[in-house]
Formats: sequence, C-alpha cells, structure tokens
Amino acid sequence: MHETDKEAGLLQALRGVTTASLTTVLLKKGLRTVWMRGASALSPGQPRVAGRAFTLRFVPAREDLANPAAWSSPTSTRAAIEAMPSGVIVVTDAMGITDAGILGDILCARMKQRGVTALITDGVVRDGAGVRETGLPVWCNGLAASPAVASLSFVGWQEPVGCGGVAVFPGDMIVADGDGAVVIPAALVDEVTAEAVELETFEAWVLAEVTRGVALPGLYPASAETLARYAAYRREQGL
Amino acid sequence: MHETDKEAGLLQALRGVTTASLTTVLLKKGLRTVWMRGASALSPGQPRVAGRAFTLRFVPAREDLANPAAWSSPTSTRAAIEAMPSGVIVVTDAMGITDAGILGDILCARMKQRGVTALITDGVVRDGAGVRETGLPVWCNGLAASPAVASLSFVGWQEPVGCGGVAVFPGDMIVADGDGAVVIPAALVDEVTAEAVELETFEAWVLAEVTRGVALPGLYPASAETLARYAAYRREQGL
Amino acid sequence: MHETDKEAGLLQALRGVTTASLTTVLLKKGLRTVWMRGASALSPGQPRVAGRAFTLRFVPAREDLANPAAWSSPTSTRAAIEAMPSGVIVVTDAMGITDAGILGDILCARMKQRGVTALITDGVVRDGAGVRETGLPVWCNGLAASPAVASLSFVGWQEPVGCGGVAVFPGDMIVADGDGAVVIPAALVDEVTAEAVELETFEAWVLAEVTRGVALPGLYPASAETLARYAAYRREQGL
Amino acid sequence: MHETDKEAGLLQALRGVTTASLTTVLLKKGLRTVWMRGASALSPGQPRVAGRAFTLRFVPAREDLANPAAWSSPTSTRAAIEAMPSGVIVVTDAMGITDAGILGDILCARMKQRGVTALITDGVVRDGAGVRETGLPVWCNGLAASPAVASLSFVGWQEPVGCGGVAVFPGDMIVADGDGAVVIPAALVDEVTAEAVELETFEAWVLAEVTRGVALPGLYPASAETLARYAAYRREQGL
Amino acid sequence: MHETDKEAGLLQALRGVTTASLTTVLLKKGLRTVWMRGASALSPGQPRVAGRAFTLRFVPAREDLANPAAWSSPTSTRAAIEAMPSGVIVVTDAMGITDAGILGDILCARMKQRGVTALITDGVVRDGAGVRETGLPVWCNGLAASPAVASLSFVGWQEPVGCGGVAVFPGDMIVADGDGAVVIPAALVDEVTAEAVELETFEAWVLAEVTRGVALPGLYPASAETLARYAAYRREQGL
Amino acid sequence: MHETDKEAGLLQALRGVTTASLTTVLLKKGLRTVWMRGASALSPGQPRVAGRAFTLRFVPAREDLANPAAWSSPTSTRAAIEAMPSGVIVVTDAMGITDAGILGDILCARMKQRGVTALITDGVVRDGAGVRETGLPVWCNGLAASPAVASLSFVGWQEPVGCGGVAVFPGDMIVADGDGAVVIPAALVDEVTAEAVELETFEAWVLAEVTRGVALPGLYPASAETLARYAAYRREQGL
Repeated sequence: MHETDKEAGLLQALRGVTTASLTTVLLKKGLRTVWMRGASALSPGQPRVAGRAFTLRFVPAREDLANPAAWSSPTSTRAAIEAMPSGVIVVTDAMGITDAGILGDILCARMKQRGVTALITDGVVRDGAGVRETGLPVWCNGLAASPAVASLSFVGWQEPVGCGGVAVFPGDMIVADGDGAVVIPAALVDEVTAEAVELETFEAWVLAEVTRGVALPGLYPASAETLARYAAYRREQGL
Repeated sequence: MHETDKEAGLLQALRGVTTASLTTVLLKKGLRTVWMRGASALSPGQPRVAGRAFTLRFVPAREDLANPAAWSSPTSTRAAIEAMPSGVIVVTDAMGITDAGILGDILCARMKQRGVTALITDGVVRDGAGVRETGLPVWCNGLAASPAVASLSFVGWQEPVGCGGVAVFPGDMIVADGDGAVVIPAALVDEVTAEAVELETFEAWVLAEVTRGVALPGLYPASAETLARYAAYRREQGL
Repeated sequence: MHETDKEAGLLQALRGVTTASLTTVLLKKGLRTVWMRGASALSPGQPRVAGRAFTLRFVPAREDLANPAAWSSPTSTRAAIEAMPSGVIVVTDAMGITDAGILGDILCARMKQRGVTALITDGVVRDGAGVRETGLPVWCNGLAASPAVASLSFVGWQEPVGCGGVAVFPGDMIVADGDGAVVIPAALVDEVTAEAVELETFEAWVLAEVTRGVALPGLYPASAETLARYAAYRREQGL
Repeated sequence: MHETDKEAGLLQALRGVTTASLTTVLLKKGLRTVWMRGASALSPGQPRVAGRAFTLRFVPAREDLANPAAWSSPTSTRAAIEAMPSGVIVVTDAMGITDAGILGDILCARMKQRGVTALITDGVVRDGAGVRETGLPVWCNGLAASPAVASLSFVGWQEPVGCGGVAVFPGDMIVADGDGAVVIPAALVDEVTAEAVELETFEAWVLAEVTRGVALPGLYPASAETLARYAAYRREQGL
Repeated sequence: MHETDKEAGLLQALRGVTTASLTTVLLKKGLRTVWMRGASALSPGQPRVAGRAFTLRFVPAREDLANPAAWSSPTSTRAAIEAMPSGVIVVTDAMGITDAGILGDILCARMKQRGVTALITDGVVRDGAGVRETGLPVWCNGLAASPAVASLSFVGWQEPVGCGGVAVFPGDMIVADGDGAVVIPAALVDEVTAEAVELETFEAWVLAEVTRGVALPGLYPASAETLARYAAYRREQGL
Repeated sequence: MHETDKEAGLLQALRGVTTASLTTVLLKKGLRTVWMRGASALSPGQPRVAGRAFTLRFVPAREDLANPAAWSSPTSTRAAIEAMPSGVIVVTDAMGITDAGILGDILCARMKQRGVTALITDGVVRDGAGVRETGLPVWCNGLAASPAVASLSFVGWQEPVGCGGVAVFPGDMIVADGDGAVVIPAALVDEVTAEAVELETFEAWVLAEVTRGVALPGLYPASAETLARYAAYRREQGL
C-alpha cells in the first residue's frame, strides 16, 4: 500500500513535468537515448501520461506465420492484452514498420476496458477514427489500413524491446506528451522525478524573466546573481 | 445502364466500409501489398471516396525535359486532365519524390470541374491552401512549394504505375479514407466488396461487445459460441 | 532610410505572393533547389513571413563537446540569439537530425523578444506547447523532447549553411508559408519579387477562368488569345 | 543417429543448391520474405554454408546498459557464444544498425573454436582483418570500428528475431552464398530441399540450352515439348 | 550504312572518354541529373561500355500479378529480351528495390547471346556467380537471391523510365565505367561526344602537369598563359 | 622540434593500433560518436593512416553558385588544397551526398604532391581509376561520375564539420584503417594513444589464448586470475 502510494505520487509528479525537462535531467546523468523516434500523439491535445512499461514485440512478417491463423495463436496480441494490468503504458516494438497497423479499434477498445493508460509504438495503428473513439491515448507514427500480419509477426510480451531507437524494459517508467515519449530507467525514477520537478519550477521562472525582457547571458545558464534572485523568488513563493 | 447501376451500387457499398476492412479481406485472399505508403488525407475529416483508377506517371526530372516548355507538350499533365472522365480517382506515381508538387490549385480546380472524385499520390501537391479551396479531396505525402518540373518529368497517363509501393492499373478500384488509400484489383472488386460489407457488420458487433466488457478470447477471433450469438444478433436485426 | 523603405516594400510584396509562385519564377531562371525539405509550419494557419536569413549552424554531437557545459560556451545558441537583429528569419542547419530539439520555449521566447520574424530549420524544436505560446512562427520537421546537445553541437552563426537540401547564405531572402520555406538569393530579390507579383496576378485570373469552366488547353499555358483576354482584364481592373 | 544422418544429408544437399533456387521454390509455396537484406559475404569467394539458426538479439543502446560493464553481464554475447552447439549458423538481429560492430575478432575466433558454421547479421562486424583471419564465414552489412555497446544492448539468445526484414526462429534452416542469406522455415526444410535440388538440375540444363543458342519462348518457362526434351536428357544422364 | 558508320564512330569515341568527363560536359550545358544512383559495376575491372538505351520497366509486386504465372505472360521479361537488338544497353527501372533480383543467369545468358552490350539497373541481379560467367557486363546495386516476382511486377519495355533518379528514354546514349552509368540525351550525343573528347585530352595534360609539380592556381581552371602552353603542347603532339 | 618528435611518435604509435581498439578506449571515456559512417577504404588493403584533420566543408548546390564559375572562386577546393600542409588528413563534410564526387583525379594528384596523408569523406570521389593511380589513400562512400557542383557548393576549409555523423575540428587526430575512420579529440590524443597501445597488446594475447582453446568466461573480460597470467606473460616478454 505504502508502495502504491509512492507510485501514485510519482505518477502524479511526472504528469506535471514536461518530457523536455525529463530528457534534460536524464542527459545530465549521461543518458542521451531516451526519446522514442516516430511516436507522435495521434490526437492533438492528448494530455500527458505516465505509467510503467508493458512491452509488446513484433518481428517481420513471414507468410507461413503472419496470416489470419496467427490471430488464434497462444502468442497473439489478444493474449497479450488479456495479460495487461491496469495503469500500464503499452510500448510496442514494430521495428519502425509503418505500412501495417499493429492494432485497430477493437483491440484498443479492449485495452481501454482493461485500464491501460496509453499505447506507444514506433509503428502505426489502423482504424484511426475508431481508435480515437475508444479514448485510449496513442503515440504512433501515423496510420495504415493494413492489418499487422501484412508486415509483422507478433512474438511476445514483457520482453526487452527497442522502440524508436530506445531500449525499453518491462517496468521502466514511460512519460509521453506533445513532444513525444520518453523512458526513465526503472532504477532512476525517483531521483529523475525529483530533479525534473525542480527543473520545471526553475525554467518556468526563467521563462517569465525572458518574457519580461531579461537577456539570456547570466540568466540561462544562470549566474550566481541569477541563482540568488531565483532563491529569493522561491522563498517569496514558499516553494 | 445495368452496368452503371451495378457500378453505382459497388461505389456506394465501398463508401460504407473502412479501408481497414478491405485490407483484411484482401489479405485473406493472399494480397498483402494494397495500401499505398505516403498517401495521407490532406485535410482532416475528408469523407471516404471510391472510384476507378485513372493513372498518371512521372519519371525523374532531366533538365532538357523538365522545364517550363514541358507545360505545352502534348504529353503534359494538362492534356491528361482533359482526358479524365467524371468519377475517376486519379492515382499518380511520383516515385515518392516529396520536394516538388505534382499539381497545384489551378490544375486541381480543373480536375474538380471535370468531376474527378479524388487525387491520390505518393508525392506531394503545391499551393496547399488553394488546393483545399478547390474542394478536390487529396491524399498525398505533404506539400511543397516547387513546381513538378523542379524534380519530375511527366510521361503519360492510363499506364500501369507504382504508387506508394503498390501496383495500380487503370480501372482498378481505389478506396481512400482516414487510414489512407487502398487498391482492389479490378477482377476482385465484386467479391471483395461483398465480403468487406459482411466483415464491417461483424466487427461493429464485436466492438460493441468489447465496449460492454467482453474479453477477447473466444470473441475475436470468434468461437463457435460467439458466432452463434452473432447469428442470433443478425436475425434480431433482420440483417 | 531609402534602403529601409525599399526593403520594407519588398517584404510587404513578398508577404503577398505564395512560395509556389516564387519557386516558379526561380525555376524559370534556372534555380531548382530553393525549397527546404522538412521545414513545415509548426502551427496550422501561420501567416506568410518574409525576412533576411540569419543562419545558425550545428554539427553532430560529440560527447566531449555536446553537454550541459556547452550552454555557457561563447559559441552557444544563447550568444547567437543576442546577436540577432530585429526582423530576421533564423535559418538553422540541423543536418536533418530530428531526434533532438534545436531550441525550446525559453530561447524562442527570447528570439520573439528580440523581434525575430520566424525560425526555420530542417531539424525539430522541443517544448512544442511552450514554443507555440511564445508566438514565434516556426517551420520545422516536428518535435522532440531531447535537448540539442543529445545529438547536436552548435558551432556558429552567420555562416553559409545547408537547410533541407538548400544552400542559404546570411542575407538571402527567405519566404515561408503553408507550402514551406523558400530562399531567394540576395542578388535576385528585386527581380524575383517583381516577377512573382506579376505571376500571382495572372494565376489568380487563370484560376477564376478555370472555376467558371474554361478548359486548360490554350489557357494554361496561355495562348496568344488568352494573353489578349488577360491584357483586357488587366486594363479593366486598372492593373 | 538416423536423425543425424538425415540432417547431414539435408545439409549436404543444401550446400549444392543456390539461394536463388531456394527462393524460387519458397516463392512457389507463397513465401516471399525469406532473403535477408544487408547480409553480404564479408570475403569474396566464401563457399556456400547451410545450418540451423542459433539467434542473437540486440536492442538499441541505452547508456545505463550499454557500457563496458555489460561485457560481464550474465546476458552477454560471451555467455551466448559458450551456449552455441557445433554446426549452427548464428543469426544476429542488429536492427540494421551499421555504426557499431556486433562482434570482433576475439569473439569470432571463439565461435570458430566452438564449431560455429557461419555468422549472419543485418548489422556489421569490427576488426574486419582479424575476423577474416579467424576463418569464420561472415555475412554482414559492412564493417565498423566501434564496439557493440556504442549503439547496441545485447538482450538474449535463441529467441525469435528479425534479421534484414525476415523473421528467423531458432532451428530454422539457413543457407548463405554469394547472393546472400535465406531462411527455410523448419517445417518446410525437407520438401524445399528436395524441390530445390530438382530445380537446380533443370535450370542447369536450361542454361546450357540458352548457351547453345536456344531462344527463351517455350524454353523458360518450359513448354510440353521442352519438358519432353528435358525428360529425355535426364534419362540419358541417368538422373 | 553511313548512319551506321557514324554511330560506330560515336560509340568508339565514347568508349575512350570517362563518364566523369561526360558529366562535366553535360553540366556545362545545364544537365545535372544524368548519373544513375545505385548502378555500380558488378565485376571489378569491367571495361567501359557505350550503347543506345533499351528500357525495361517494373512496378511494385502485387500478389495477384507477381507470381510464377507472370513468367509466361506476353508482357514478360522473356518477351522483352527476344525484342532486344544487338548492341543496346538495357536500362532497367527497378524503382531502387534491392531485395529481389530483376534477372538471373539464364536471362543474362540469353541477353549475351542476342548481342546486348550491357545491363544497367538501380535494382539488383540474382545468381551473381552465374551472371558473371555469362560475360554480360552488369551495373547494379548488389545482389539478392529472391526472384523478381518477390517484389516486382514487369510491365513493359521501350518506355520512358527512371533509373537511379535519372530519366532515360529509349534511344538515349548510355555510357558506363568504373564511376557508374551516365545518360546522354539522344539530341545531344554528337556535340557532347565531341566536347568530351576534347576535355579528356586537356585533362590528361593537366594531370601530367600536376604530377610534375605544377600548382593548381592558373592551371585548373586554366589561365590564358596555361591555355597557350596547352595549345603549344597540342601543336607539338599534332593533336 | 621536441613537439615534432612527440607528434611523430604519436603518429607511429597510432599506425600500430586498430581503429577498433581506439573506439573501445574512447567509449570507456564516454565518447561513443567517433566513427564516421560511410567512409570506407576505396582500395582494399590500404595501410592504416594517422594524421591531424584538415577540414573541407560543402553545403548543397544552388544553381547560381554551384557551376563551373565556382572553380575559379577564391573559396574553391583548389584554393583549399594549396593551403594544406604536409601530413594532414583531409576530412570533408559532403553531408552524406553520394551522387556527385567531391574531388577527382587531378585534385587528388595535387593533394598527393603536397604531401597530404589521406582523404576522408562521407561523400564520394570521381575518376575512381585515376584517383587510385595517384596513390592518395581515400576513405569514401563509393564513386560517382558527376562533378561536385552537380550537387554541392564548397564553402570553406579549416572550420568545424560533421563527417559521417561525427563532429571533427581542425587539429583533431584522425586514424583510418579497414574498419573505417575514427576521430580522437585533440585534447585526448596522448592518453587515448597510450591506452590503445596497452589494449592492443592485451587483446593480441587474449586472441592467442582463444585460438589455443581457452573459453571466454574469465578470459574476456579478464578475471583476476587471467590478469595475473597476462602480467606473467608481459614479464616474460619484457613488455
């Protein structure tokens, strides 16, 4: 329960910081490869999401495997969906293939029913209109009409995957917003979240300074004088 | 006339099924390569279109051919447009070149005047704002300011072409919606249309089942029990 | 001052012609490579902009250079921004790299404060929501959360650059609208502007002709008879 | 032992047929996606190899995982190599990444010691000169100096993988020659091998016919008359 | 006969000038897009070839068309080969697809029998070892085991095509050597050949000058003094 | 002189270590992005080279700049070559453009005359046969017949550049061999060279161990026992 509360606190904090802030914090720790190429918000204005990664993995289609019979296989996307716990973010390795939709409206509707927070892929989805109607937030590389088996074979879930050039392990933290989707390695979630919250506050103050006409030198990066002014501001605001 | 009525019925039916359903039906017949890469709806919310393919073909620009003099050539896009019958969907092979617009507002306006149903290309158009104003629905790979001759030479119409990695022959059926554009080979139009209408009805029922909380196993793909429930539903609905 | 008036007149004229017309005029002079690949309007409906190019140049990131320390370097994007005069269009060579944002909301806010007209790049920006709020018009190749230093090292400003496959020199004229961004070489600005204004007027008349049902042959390209009709129209309109 | 003899016979037969013949036979069975893009013979004149697939899988590098510490991990390429039985062909999914060598001379030498038949990857190797000296035949997409961890994280062996756009499962049959590397799904090995041996004999006869001046029509594809002549030839040769 | 003699003279002259010289001459006439991307000599040391273009055209494979039945179609590569006159260079538009060989050893052997001078494509060939044995010089983008129908549908011959980003029309002149393959538009062959022969002589002299230690300024491009020295050299050599 | 001796010693040492060893050492220091994509040895068997970077920079061609007149410009490749000191390695940023040769035989001959050690580019060269005859070692991405001005405009030398995805500054150390070309940042040359020499000795010993049958666990990475054996070996060899 204590753990659950802590996780809920982390998720709430992460929904309040931009992916841009998170990548800055991760870069300062030496992690440059955390933003997933090709995963854009399907619907404009999707709110920011945060959750633990539940991974799906595809390999290329081979005609003896990737056909309608695959839909009944014990290693199907259907089986994977029924294994998804509530609150996860599903990260799908489609190897960047964009001419076959990994999932369509029916499977997205079921994921929404199961409490999945969001779907993220370096591939595409199909039934775009229907998917949007399910209300499941999706980050993907566009739409395609063709079913997954036209180009992809599903091979498993909860394995390490690559998504958009980034390694994602089951249980890593995922945050996605208008700038795309970012992974925070599980071991670093606490410290990254704390530092990102700090950074977010600081940069909001810097932006306000710029907006009132302050020049960049000495402000950003901050000189000692600027840091002092910021410290004063924080005290005033009771932060 | 009878033929015309049949064709009108096919077009009406096809405007009622998604390209996603069509690709599923085509895949079951062994056709995986029917969805055109790079052809996205230019304007959000464009309604679904269906029509017979009228093809245009470009090769790369060579400076002795691709220049303003080409606009008066007997093999110009202008001449092709004047040969377009009403109701066709113009499928243009731009070899995926995206830095020169195959057509702009004036030519699109003329196509609209001639009753062309839609324009589809793996390339781009120019005068994007003007093209939208013509009301001609366009599926393309974005916009570019440059004229076609900056990168392309027009070489003919009503020839077999490739568009977005798909072979298209004059007279093939084309359907396009928010998920993109799909070809149905001319010889398969009747059976594919019939099966897609069936599939559409079934999947709508499945989606409703999922939305009321039914799990995927046994539902999709359907078990014998599910199929029996669906048959009952059809009887109830008089389908 | 006289110079300033002339420049203001040019800019006003250029804000009235499409980039499509400009590329047609430039092509007639033998310039095919003037439209920048990958630079699309960040916000739909951004008005057309015109201004002189102020260039920024990046090279790929090397981990000993591209790190937070770079933000304080004398060769930083911060220093470049403080050197930007009012009215310029900032053209940034990001080598087409799309997985790290060249700039975010704070730096865009400062550019807006300094009177920069627009930002154009073959790369991407970050803090997309924040950048839009600054009101600075941006043409770019999407968004990414990661900071520039994740993939890029900034090396200087006001140098010749490549942007989207096009050579841009400081002081070249830039025009951008819904069809993207175009360069007019500094030496050609006067004549290109004059001819584009002419072309714009003519093509508006042609489009009206097409809309009222005139066929393309003889109209576009124009026959002698068409040119005579157009001349009559111009006289009527007092153009 | 009987099984072993049969396998040895298959391997010997497969070393006598070209990958071109194998892909023709597989295509006739509906399998088009069996040739691995990007896997070329490292040394000219490498003899044809055949063997069962032993798979390695990488995901993209993340800096907290892909570093020298990974070399001692229980999930290292070192551990995978010590698990390789004699006679296998190692198929490595490098996701087509070509700027970091998956393995170098030391690990290839160890694979050679363990009796590995060949290494195939859609990525690259490093220490090219040293790898050639080990005598291990390699099919890859070139060479790179950088170590795997510069761009790749190793995650496991004997899992389904994608290699050059083709699905490969542990135990599938792999054949590679000057035209590249091909997979034969495990369930199809017997029949494909038998048909390929037939096809090879027939096409050698056709080639001899062409070389003595016979035209293609009726010869290839063969008319009934041609098939009769071929049957006669087979009888003469005691085939 | 006179025509034949003239053509033979052109071909002999063109076999004596590099494709590099030809592209320089063509560029001076405003033609930049004449070198075909992706068409490299299959065998090192292939001698330079020259001949008129005979074109082949493919579109992408669609499974109802691209299958073994296509080999007997009246529009097959077999039929095209039987239509090839002696001395032509076959230019094949494979749309840059590199995972299926457009032709193999049997068809190349037949082309050699018919007196075809060379095969050029932006795609690949199969049966690489067998193709080399036929003695037909090939410029291509590598090798693949798969048959054409795995990815390509053949649609015709002697049509305008694109090959490696270049427009080629039947009857254009083609020259290929170690630097690749170049098209000379039919209308420009005489003048381009004459100027290239001149340029070749001049650049050989320049190279000799550089080799004996002359610096570039004034030499290349040539000053008036250099041109005078070259004129003297020509007189001495009786050129 | 002392400096010169030291530099000569560094160069000699670097000619004795592989680029693979150098990238390993650089990675251990956090530098992953040091190997240049697309720069392969033009001639097989080119010996390893080492030298300080002398950079050349191109931007894309614009037809008003990139034409034969450019050859006489003060900012020409000719002028750059006359500024090259003996012993440098010329690193050329061609932005990865591979359809126009940055330089041909005449300019390479002049570079050879001036004592240039090697030419490295992410682009291509032309006059391949002639370039090989000059004896200048070249690492490039293939050959093309077209002159640089067909696709590129030369803009300067001795500036920071990107080459194959790597930042290179004038004076950085470059080493190239059969695995490609690597940059060592100027500030790190001494320590990287020393450590690479050490690593090279150790890995040669490891390879010998593997060749005599030692398994990888405990050997590579080395256990304490292995390190002790290696230390003994070093003592025996007097290293």
